[in-house]
Amino acid sequence: MTKVYLAGPDVFLPDAVDIGRRKVELCTRHGLTGLYPLDNAIDPAASDASLRIFRGNQAMMIEADAVIANLTPFRGPGADAGTVYELGYMAGRGKLCLGYSNDPTSYADRMRRFTDVHSRDGGLVDASGLTVEDFGLTDNLMMIHALDLHGCPLVTPQQAPADIWHDLGAFETCVRLAAERLAAPHAQASG
Amino acid sequence: MTKVYLAGPDVFLPDAVDIGRRKVELCTRHGLTGLYPLDNAIDPAASDASLRIFRGNQAMMIEADAVIANLTPFRGPGADAGTVYELGYMAGRGKLCLGYSNDPTSYADRMRRFTDVHSRDGGLVDASGLTVEDFGLTDNLMMIHALDLHGCPLVTPQQAPADIWHDLGAFETCVRLAAERLAAPHAQASG
Repeated sequence: MTKVYLAGPDVFLPDAVDIGRRKVELCTRHGLTGLYPLDNAIDPAASDASLRIFRGNQAMMIEADAVIANLTPFRGPGADAGTVYELGYMAGRGKLCLGYSNDPTSYADRMRRFTDVHSRDGGLVDASGLTVEDFGLTDNLMMIHALDLHGCPLVTPQQAPADIWHDLGAFETCVRLAAERLAAPHAQASG
Repeated sequence: MTKVYLAGPDVFLPDAVDIGRRKVELCTRHGLTGLYPLDNAIDPAASDASLRIFRGNQAMMIEADAVIANLTPFRGPGADAGTVYELGYMAGRGKLCLGYSNDPTSYADRMRRFTDVHSRDGGLVDASGLTVEDFGLTDNLMMIHALDLHGCPLVTPQQAPADIWHDLGAFETCVRLAAERLAAPHAQASG
């Protein structure tokens, strides 16, 4: 069965295990095997806990045919770093890359909402004078175009859902797209 | 000549081009060819500017033998998302991975400094109740252990330099490590 790695900061939620179960169930419903990161399956008190999580997650990524990355902004204007690393890793290995964000606003608009942003030399900069990417994209161009060119364009809802961490509508759209893209003709004929 | 991709939010600095030049010069001094991202070489007003930057940066990553990622925290508690994507991409392609951060504090300590963080069920959570990774690592475990296992452990200064965006001490340490690791015996013999 086709395997999909379910990257996302979901592992940091208080009900991380439950969210993982819901995501895996949605995958099953669409004929895919969802692989959820190990972060909550390993005792954090173990001396080598972080290394065991890394090795486990990497092994699952190598095993998977695709990644669905939850790129909803996390502790700042952009996506969770661990998730972004995993998206890059899967793109580097030539796997099918899908992703979603439950915040549909552009990165520049999100920066305008949260911090002091102003124009300089025709471009946008933050309070520290660092350039703010202003291409109308939802996040950093490397991730957004990685999805465009290595899988499917970022999936976002028309409007942010009331509960950005528990609404799985955009996630399910990704699952459906992954199932369509990964269903080889011979698999359909035999199944 | 051995090529190293120079990932980092340096491209967003007001003097991005100058920093890039300094980084490439340090590489040359250690016998390496530094490849600096294209972000500032492409007219941002062009309709396909972001896609051209993506394609150009990806082509350089495919060409490079190694990556040196600047993981200094950027607009939040952790590293720049574009840089993290690139580190993941290079790890996925089996390239040598090096990185540095000019902020040597742990992720948990940085979170404590900036936001309301408290204990719950023996773990650390932020104001939204989301788990804060507390393994004593400088950033998300995926990136930190990627460096441990696919290259060299993260390089940090003893103390944050006065100018975290322009001090290239930790960067030069990475260049030296990359040069040592990439210098194949036959290359030394013939060079």
